[in-house]
Amino acid sequence: MAGKLYGLGIGPGDPELLTLKAVRLIKESDIVLVPGSNPEDTVAYQITVQAVPELAQKQIVGIAMPMTKDLSMLEKTHEEGARQVAQYLEQGKICVFLTLGDPTVYSTYIYIHKKILERGLEAEIVSGIPSFCAVAAKMGISLVEKSEELHVIPAVYQFQEGMELSGTKVFMKVGKRSGKLRELLKEKKADALMIENCGMPGERIFASPDEFPDEVGYYSLVIAKEGK
Amino acid sequence: MAGKLYGLGIGPGDPELLTLKAVRLIKESDIVLVPGSNPEDTVAYQITVQAVPELAQKQIVGIAMPMTKDLSMLEKTHEEGARQVAQYLEQGKICVFLTLGDPTVYSTYIYIHKKILERGLEAEIVSGIPSFCAVAAKMGISLVEKSEELHVIPAVYQFQEGMELSGTKVFMKVGKRSGKLRELLKEKKADALMIENCGMPGERIFASPDEFPDEVGYYSLVIAKEGK
Repeated sequence: MAGKLYGLGIGPGDPELLTLKAVRLIKESDIVLVPGSNPEDTVAYQITVQAVPELAQKQIVGIAMPMTKDLSMLEKTHEEGARQVAQYLEQGKICVFLTLGDPTVYSTYIYIHKKILERGLEAEIVSGIPSFCAVAAKMGISLVEKSEELHVIPAVYQFQEGMELSGTKVFMKVGKRSGKLRELLKEKKADALMIENCGMPGERIFASPDEFPDEVGYYSLVIAKEGK
Repeated sequence: MAGKLYGLGIGPGDPELLTLKAVRLIKESDIVLVPGSNPEDTVAYQITVQAVPELAQKQIVGIAMPMTKDLSMLEKTHEEGARQVAQYLEQGKICVFLTLGDPTVYSTYIYIHKKILERGLEAEIVSGIPSFCAVAAKMGISLVEKSEELHVIPAVYQFQEGMELSGTKVFMKVGKRSGKLRELLKEKKADALMIENCGMPGERIFASPDEFPDEVGYYSLVIAKEGK
């Protein structure tokens, strides 16, 4: 009998934000897959092992997931990753794939998920806390109330049109765009804040656009509320 | 010494989607607050007691939270709720407030949170899985990939402008607007699905707009993907 793949959201960084379901499935699994070439060095492994010490006794396999916008390169690595995972499933193994945040929100897991289903194998997504919820919680603010709309925009691509939307804007993966975003938010007199590495080592909070540096790390997120 | 209030997101319905942190804080708490007049009958209680059986031994207090758009009525009930909670905190009690989904996304908890902080008392938000992530996971699909934007729109207010946005649209609290939303989605030839009571008793899935009834329950959510 073929095994099953579970794509587990492990949340934004705090090991205590893993769900009971993620913890149970990791314990029950035969193989733990993590995105990266050196499994024990990955952020996903480092977070999870704190919540589930049993992880250290498991067979851990790294699935190479280079960050690139080159679509043919991406397709090739996803295909190779899926082939690797499919082999384990065909051996009847229960595999869990650890993914930061939630697997349905800009995760690389989803490509493996689709390819496993295409091969007629079984795969299930298990939700995790998305980073934008964790950042709002950390700052003690709501994302949206009453009739407000929530717009999540991957800043690494573009953000100028998104800035015009009503309601709350979340800009993800700010990175090198931090300086440009700062200028636009200042121009709009927006009520915004940024967190880099929320809940992880090296966390930094920037309470207003004035404080945003020209460049920040990849795991940076801005919440911009409707101006008053 | 004054106590502390924790606003706990308990996720969308599946008891296993509670986080480790929520479970720990419920166990450590003196008083468990739930939105509603008959605490043990509330959805929040029913979900949580399955994950944390110790809940049945706790002091459970209902905080009245009528669903109304009457702002002065809302303000009055939130003020009364905050007064009740503040009394417990001033007695040094650790209180947890159970809220469905995530406390930063359209929750009524957030109003109590603000009022407790205004009184100089301590309150902390603990993230939960938002319903839209759980619905996408259940359906085995991504919400957003690569450069796609995610727009969350409370359909109970309006949805026509939201329909024009690019990327993925999530319409929450569809209820009586189901029929109108169906017609608009069909007109747009949108690739959309709806779930009522995701992960809870009475769950129903509508795989395309053609299947949407004129009216559905309050806990209904539509995911509309960018047309191909």
